[in-house]
Amino acid sequence: MRPDQRSPSDLRKVSIETGVMPYAEGSALISMGDTRVLCAASIEERVPPFMKGSGKGWVTAEYAMLPRSTLTRKERDARKGRIDGRAQEIQRLVGRSLRAAVDMALLGERMITVDCDVLQADGGTRTAAITGGYVALALAIGRLVESAVVSGNPLIREVAAVSVGLISGEVLLDLCYREDSVADTDLNCVATSDGNFIEIQGTAEGAPFTRGQLEEMLDMANAGIATLNSLQKAAIAR
Amino acid sequence: MRPDQRSPSDLRKVSIETGVMPYAEGSALISMGDTRVLCAASIEERVPPFMKGSGKGWVTAEYAMLPRSTLTRKERDARKGRIDGRAQEIQRLVGRSLRAAVDMALLGERMITVDCDVLQADGGTRTAAITGGYVALALAIGRLVESAVVSGNPLIREVAAVSVGLISGEVLLDLCYREDSVADTDLNCVATSDGNFIEIQGTAEGAPFTRGQLEEMLDMANAGIATLNSLQKAAIAR
Amino acid sequence: MRPDQRSPSDLRKVSIETGVMPYAEGSALISMGDTRVLCAASIEERVPPFMKGSGKGWVTAEYAMLPRSTLTRKERDARKGRIDGRAQEIQRLVGRSLRAAVDMALLGERMITVDCDVLQADGGTRTAAITGGYVALALAIGRLVESAVVSGNPLIREVAAVSVGLISGEVLLDLCYREDSVADTDLNCVATSDGNFIEIQGTAEGAPFTRGQLEEMLDMANAGIATLNSLQKAAIAR
Amino acid sequence: MRPDQRSPSDLRKVSIETGVMPYAEGSALISMGDTRVLCAASIEERVPPFMKGSGKGWVTAEYAMLPRSTLTRKERDARKGRIDGRAQEIQRLVGRSLRAAVDMALLGERMITVDCDVLQADGGTRTAAITGGYVALALAIGRLVESAVVSGNPLIREVAAVSVGLISGEVLLDLCYREDSVADTDLNCVATSDGNFIEIQGTAEGAPFTRGQLEEMLDMANAGIATLNSLQKAAIAR
Amino acid sequence: MRPDQRSPSDLRKVSIETGVMPYAEGSALISMGDTRVLCAASIEERVPPFMKGSGKGWVTAEYAMLPRSTLTRKERDARKGRIDGRAQEIQRLVGRSLRAAVDMALLGERMITVDCDVLQADGGTRTAAITGGYVALALAIGRLVESAVVSGNPLIREVAAVSVGLISGEVLLDLCYREDSVADTDLNCVATSDGNFIEIQGTAEGAPFTRGQLEEMLDMANAGIATLNSLQKAAIAR
Amino acid sequence: MRPDQRSPSDLRKVSIETGVMPYAEGSALISMGDTRVLCAASIEERVPPFMKGSGKGWVTAEYAMLPRSTLTRKERDARKGRIDGRAQEIQRLVGRSLRAAVDMALLGERMITVDCDVLQADGGTRTAAITGGYVALALAIGRLVESAVVSGNPLIREVAAVSVGLISGEVLLDLCYREDSVADTDLNCVATSDGNFIEIQGTAEGAPFTRGQLEEMLDMANAGIATLNSLQKAAIAR
Repeated sequence: MRPDQRSPSDLRKVSIETGVMPYAEGSALISMGDTRVLCAASIEERVPPFMKGSGKGWVTAEYAMLPRSTLTRKERDARKGRIDGRAQEIQRLVGRSLRAAVDMALLGERMITVDCDVLQADGGTRTAAITGGYVALALAIGRLVESAVVSGNPLIREVAAVSVGLISGEVLLDLCYREDSVADTDLNCVATSDGNFIEIQGTAEGAPFTRGQLEEMLDMANAGIATLNSLQKAAIAR
Repeated sequence: MRPDQRSPSDLRKVSIETGVMPYAEGSALISMGDTRVLCAASIEERVPPFMKGSGKGWVTAEYAMLPRSTLTRKERDARKGRIDGRAQEIQRLVGRSLRAAVDMALLGERMITVDCDVLQADGGTRTAAITGGYVALALAIGRLVESAVVSGNPLIREVAAVSVGLISGEVLLDLCYREDSVADTDLNCVATSDGNFIEIQGTAEGAPFTRGQLEEMLDMANAGIATLNSLQKAAIAR
Repeated sequence: MRPDQRSPSDLRKVSIETGVMPYAEGSALISMGDTRVLCAASIEERVPPFMKGSGKGWVTAEYAMLPRSTLTRKERDARKGRIDGRAQEIQRLVGRSLRAAVDMALLGERMITVDCDVLQADGGTRTAAITGGYVALALAIGRLVESAVVSGNPLIREVAAVSVGLISGEVLLDLCYREDSVADTDLNCVATSDGNFIEIQGTAEGAPFTRGQLEEMLDMANAGIATLNSLQKAAIAR
Repeated sequence: MRPDQRSPSDLRKVSIETGVMPYAEGSALISMGDTRVLCAASIEERVPPFMKGSGKGWVTAEYAMLPRSTLTRKERDARKGRIDGRAQEIQRLVGRSLRAAVDMALLGERMITVDCDVLQADGGTRTAAITGGYVALALAIGRLVESAVVSGNPLIREVAAVSVGLISGEVLLDLCYREDSVADTDLNCVATSDGNFIEIQGTAEGAPFTRGQLEEMLDMANAGIATLNSLQKAAIAR
Repeated sequence: MRPDQRSPSDLRKVSIETGVMPYAEGSALISMGDTRVLCAASIEERVPPFMKGSGKGWVTAEYAMLPRSTLTRKERDARKGRIDGRAQEIQRLVGRSLRAAVDMALLGERMITVDCDVLQADGGTRTAAITGGYVALALAIGRLVESAVVSGNPLIREVAAVSVGLISGEVLLDLCYREDSVADTDLNCVATSDGNFIEIQGTAEGAPFTRGQLEEMLDMANAGIATLNSLQKAAIAR
Repeated sequence: MRPDQRSPSDLRKVSIETGVMPYAEGSALISMGDTRVLCAASIEERVPPFMKGSGKGWVTAEYAMLPRSTLTRKERDARKGRIDGRAQEIQRLVGRSLRAAVDMALLGERMITVDCDVLQADGGTRTAAITGGYVALALAIGRLVESAVVSGNPLIREVAAVSVGLISGEVLLDLCYREDSVADTDLNCVATSDGNFIEIQGTAEGAPFTRGQLEEMLDMANAGIATLNSLQKAAIAR
């Protein structure tokens, strides 16, 4: 039995609240169970140096945890003078995933930064950041479309993410921290609403996983992502 | 007329919600108008090196702004590899102010860190951080008292803070950003419920301020702090 | 036709030379086509703070590129004062992959650091680092076994890695840089000699990839890894 | 009785020597008792990025302590790779205070940096830095006026600073370190020659201070500042 | 007797292999006994800010040790966030020495960076870096001459370097690490093929050295440099 | 003719004032013409980690320039977050030179740090730092001897330093900045009172220097050092 009585293929309780960062061009607070991530999309009329003059835009993400998002206090990166390796890895993943949703030529030479700040961390913060970050991004792009700053809609694809895990041979959807910490395999899956993949990252923490187990995990992830996609649409529509 | 139709001696609409960071020993989300600061108090069974063996505890604070708490996006300190000067100055002020509320011998050799993360910045974030941070601190200390980890109540004093400003010769309480940016003088006042001062910081942005103007500002600050004190008490009692 | 006339399922020319860093406990220079990575395994009789007293060992990896391993010169991380995000992500992947090969209880409280320094970068440096790093690691552990410092062989699993890509709908094994830069999907696969997975990371650079394409890529990766495994064994045996 | 036999309202022995840094556009070595601060004002024909094109100038300050200005050696900030929080707070205060003395439009698009390096620290280094820094600044601006680089005199106000403290209920002017370390309240006051305030910072180290005590401290500070002002004038005139 | 049976005036076995970093404009792997340094010269069509508009070029060097070039593993500078003092001192020496070989006006406004990465360190890495770095530099400049990018040959002088030491009163050429660690005096000598000096650095590790000993060391160094010069020429000619 | 009418073998006007940093165990302000360096020796009852348990002491030096010690303002290292390469090179030289004056076994497990802060830089700051730093060091050690903390006098050798240069073929002693900036060769010489060498560093800025020129420069340096030695003795004796 899972700690919160879910069945293996159940997501945790998901809510997506929009407009929570009023100064941002788009924002969303996503909760998946006790995991809460605040996502804010900022549009700037500039691109990174390597994109200048390309006529194309850029989407990037930053990820950080509030010091007390965790059970015991975690020191701030700013105090250590550098972003820790795990946060760098996650923000690169979030950035790549969200870029897949956008046509950079239609976006034009502007940059959208999606800040994902974890308020509470109970497992699955990186996938929550992608799912919530997409909503913030979509709202920000919506503003560009409404104000006719762009000639067509740069948002070309719906993107959501979920984790799947393998515990004692059983495949479980959307692990909470207690599950995550004992899982043999952890698979993060970023996909579109039609079931195609943008990124998959599967890691064996203990014994390697078999091809069969991988197939089972991917099936369950795709089902979870379909549900998340409809919740994203509803949140954006509100 | 003030931008939000307040009279000169009115505080903005204040709300203090507790328990918002469930993993923290004490937490509070304070809103003063559109300024919102998330405060979390963490107790750790250690003290900084310079306090080791003293038998006394320590209280410290950290202050940061989410990148999109401001009208235009602000780069993260972690990315620049250092905490900016203004944030350092503010977190030192918050720490000093909250230490005044605590008897360090009664606290014993443990450390309380109060993290103040600005979700939205519309002026007065440092005073809101002190007022909200006090609530988080009081709740965390309450836990120590309840569980009888400490022999007496280390919380010895109520502390709140407010800003006052001088615009075109008029004294105004609790400036919002639009007011703050044109104020001739800005005074931040940290005081106890009985009207004594823990810290005052007054800065002339343009012309110097007179002794008479200072007196007027202090009067108004004391009144505002009395109101904030009763709101703190109500929040802690809930 | 591929730039070097290979068929889609061909690896590049692979060579693994051992003993190239005479001071290291184990070392290997792996070449996969024009990609060359120098791998050195160092044994130290200490563990990171979080492992102290656990009775278990630790394996970690560091990854860096020589400034002129690339077509145009790349600034050193030391000069910038921080390790870049991509290098951090890669060294975390290499570390996780190599830890899967080792029984930490049998290793005992000692640490093995595998340094992977890229001499020449023509695509696939992270998978080459894992495949070559495994050889360096195995040689270092072999010394521990020979000198009976450990009570049993901590090396429990053979690990190798390869990349697979999707270009214009065709699946290709072991991409060189020219192929990698135009690939629609890039999949890095770390697996054991019996075909089970330690880590898979698949990223759509353009259009998302389908489940069918993923299956095809995994088949081809497994075949490549089997070949690499026999080359690793031969190198270690020499 | 005070450690050096002064009466409560006495300043320490003050001396201000000018021209001590011959390469600087203006310089002063200020001694207040055993506290000695070397102040050098540098004019540069550029402004910070946020002032470019404004037609206005900028005045800023930097504050540092020589490693052996203190009783026990203090590590250099450069070695730690960052400016410590206290130094940041002080140099921001010095900068704000000196900017109050200057009409930035008359200064034109140029920057004056006032470096305050503490040779010996026996309490009151920040107020000495302001009082001495003003002399260095005035001399540098005098050069601009003499050489007719500016169309009018940008120096519009005389600025000096002093500390006042409260020990066992008694108000004392210009605390030395031995007094400062036991003071219940420490008030730093920056004011003009006509008794108006540029900045006041009062901090209760122990019990909060009353409104009455604050009034008494401000009176004494104003008297001290008047004396310092005449010493500044004499030094500049020499 | 020396550890490797050499006579006092013998160099270790020297080899210089060119073209080892195929992407670099010039490269050389120099071995002096067990010391091995990989040198790569990179030409960039830019100069540092302080040279802009001068019409002249610039030559600079960077020096680093692979973590396992030493008997026990050495932490990477990038991990510490700064280049260590010894490496800075060495790369400044290598840069100055190589600049002496080049006419900057003939080079024109372009920069050559010579990266010296130590693969194995058995004493004398800085002198090996100069001798090998010169070969890489000469090859890179050779390309500029061949392609007629420059109007005349900017290479105006042959430069090589060697160490000499004093052990128990005896002068020894080209110390290996075992000798270096017990030497009373260590002299690094950079000279041209005709015996004139570009840089000499002599350091007494224990007792000061006499003028007579210095003369003897310089004689032996000059002889060693003549041999190295002919090996450099042969390598470049190949 | 030299800018200040000296003959080629004249030192600039030298003065050494002691006791200028009253909190330091030893201190000296050395002036050589317009070059002024403040030297402070601090004794601490600890040694660096690599010396712990050795029974021996350690001497180290730090070197920095005040921002306005130079003709145009130089940014502080602390602001850049790292010590610049030149300063590192110099402080390593000063440290090595001063260590030659001390018997580390007699010093015992304690550390002396000699801080050399340049107040005014007109050429020859590194040699002035050594000559003045020796005086500060000798005074600090004198205190240890007087208070019988050490069993014998750890000061075993007198150390001073001077620069010599070659301009248009003429050898000149103790270059000022105007001379230094046009010198063909710059030789820094650290020696004992009996004419033996602790360190020599000669650098050709333009054409290489000949053996004959080197001999001439060494002769002149030795004469200058003898004079400096007697000035050091007189200063220490005062």
